[in-house]
Amino acid sequence: MKNEEEKIGSFCLKEYLQEVEEFHGHIAPGLVVGGFMVEMAKRHIPKGVLFDAISETSQCLPDAIQILTPCTVGNSWLRVIDLGRFALALFDKYTGEGVRVFLDAAKLEPFPAIRSWFFRTRPKAAQDEEKLLDEIKAAGEEILGVERVRIRDELIGKQSKGKIALCPVCGEAYPASQGDMCSGCQGQAPYLSDS
Amino acid sequence: MKNEEEKIGSFCLKEYLQEVEEFHGHIAPGLVVGGFMVEMAKRHIPKGVLFDAISETSQCLPDAIQILTPCTVGNSWLRVIDLGRFALALFDKYTGEGVRVFLDAAKLEPFPAIRSWFFRTRPKAAQDEEKLLDEIKAAGEEILGVERVRIRDELIGKQSKGKIALCPVCGEAYPASQGDMCSGCQGQAPYLSDS
Repeated sequence: MKNEEEKIGSFCLKEYLQEVEEFHGHIAPGLVVGGFMVEMAKRHIPKGVLFDAISETSQCLPDAIQILTPCTVGNSWLRVIDLGRFALALFDKYTGEGVRVFLDAAKLEPFPAIRSWFFRTRPKAAQDEEKLLDEIKAAGEEILGVERVRIRDELIGKQSKGKIALCPVCGEAYPASQGDMCSGCQGQAPYLSDS
Repeated sequence: MKNEEEKIGSFCLKEYLQEVEEFHGHIAPGLVVGGFMVEMAKRHIPKGVLFDAISETSQCLPDAIQILTPCTVGNSWLRVIDLGRFALALFDKYTGEGVRVFLDAAKLEPFPAIRSWFFRTRPKAAQDEEKLLDEIKAAGEEILGVERVRIRDELIGKQSKGKIALCPVCGEAYPASQGDMCSGCQGQAPYLSDS
């Protein structure tokens, strides 16, 4: 266990935390747990398999995956399917066979600081951040669960967006499959007055 | 213009392309255009304003934003709202006032390689990647459009997931607002046989 506590992937823990600080902005507890999760998942994938990733939450975990694997949101190898569960899957990008790692709530009894962070039973300002990080490092993979999964067929491989059309309303290019105008002009745009 | 062609953010173009290769896996044309887009948007935001980001596509652009700004998917400062439009917005995280930058299809006439890449009129294998990248670098911001936007109120600020519950089916923690069981167990999980 000691060795696992000191390494996350090819980084030593200290190096990983530096990467986290640089990419994510600060050393969030979720990124530290996430580092152990990604590493555990990678060990359960046969060597040499090209894998894609799924994060079941948009919080923290996507960044652990983006730091520790070749999968990013922009290269489409990481997909965020926000179920609000603190879990991730790595899977063979051709067969969909893979592994899912999750934070196992049933294993948190010996770790009160992790427990109150995870269940948000204490306001963030009242959290003892140092104690929490110490507990996470000490726990390592002890608080995780792992299971084999197979990804649904429609999520395997590259999803092409098909033919491109010009939207008659905004004049921008969009996937023609969205209909006669782009989904932004159909009301999905996040702006108060969309062009 | 020359200066803009040679720099992307605080990186010179060459350094940025190295970052792209390391993070995204390869120098994708969308990341090069995306670099110019992020940089143009940043210049239109008043100095010192703390900004969030939206990418209107999941392809390429999120990675340009994650490389060139403090906004990442995992820290929630970047949200991907996949409208399939090659556009991004940076906005003041407190007021929602910001700027949207898009690839302007109407400006592509002088750039045939960018045009056929953007509209996918030529199979990827038949693309002259070098010519395309040269055209993108030469075009710089000339192919972009920029406009002021205001983000919808519900997208401003941190969205709390509220109370956490234990799912009676899978036993994992989830936002109680999803209902009596987690959305994964309600059928949203991406696996063939979900635990």
